[in-house]
Amino acid sequence: MGFDISEKAVKRAGLDYWHLVDLHVWHDLDELFGSEKPEDIWLATSKGPRSYTDPAVQFRDGCWLFFGKETAGLPEAFRLQYSQRCIRIPIRAEARCLNLSNSVAILAYEALKQTGFPGLREAGEMAGGT
Amino acid sequence: MGFDISEKAVKRAGLDYWHLVDLHVWHDLDELFGSEKPEDIWLATSKGPRSYTDPAVQFRDGCWLFFGKETAGLPEAFRLQYSQRCIRIPIRAEARCLNLSNSVAILAYEALKQTGFPGLREAGEMAGGT
Repeated sequence: MGFDISEKAVKRAGLDYWHLVDLHVWHDLDELFGSEKPEDIWLATSKGPRSYTDPAVQFRDGCWLFFGKETAGLPEAFRLQYSQRCIRIPIRAEARCLNLSNSVAILAYEALKQTGFPGLREAGEMAGGT
Repeated sequence: MGFDISEKAVKRAGLDYWHLVDLHVWHDLDELFGSEKPEDIWLATSKGPRSYTDPAVQFRDGCWLFFGKETAGLPEAFRLQYSQRCIRIPIRAEARCLNLSNSVAILAYEALKQTGFPGLREAGEMAGGT
């Protein structure tokens, strides 16, 4: 993991909603695939052959999104094994990649949109009056 | 502005692509509206009456996205004046708002998607072979 999620680090970062996160940690990909057997997976990588907005890419309820750490991205062997599941967020040719937080936000919200924002509130307080 | 964009601060933050940003700074909203006369505007606010994914919300080339600072959001008078242009990113009812960086990423990429990712590269290096 490219960052520290110890209780101390999380407190220092001021993550207001950390307690709402349903967090699981696996030691490595083998452990994850052995225990969870994920099938509907998508690998976020700037090397991906197609955009996440390609019609062939559909996010369904229960799908998994994989992101690599910012310095190295996802392991090459993992990417090659699932090359048809590698997706890219379009960026300028002269840029290497978006930062991890923004990449997660963009793909997570595209997936949430496609699955109907389950459990999320769509209208804010202005919906009532003006 | 809720953050420091001095050269020193930007260097310290390690923003690799800052030189690619076409940055304009206006003193306040009056100055911006006086000089630029933006018409196709969208205000990002957790108070917004509808989701940014509502069919009535269409992002077009040249539109403007407005975000407030994290502590206060956009000014109330500005929101009320453009209430039909206020959009919300759906989140859990018990959370106040997303952080600013993620909010910008989500809405900017939705707008970029709807306008065909102008000038951005959609396929990464895996597009050539595996």
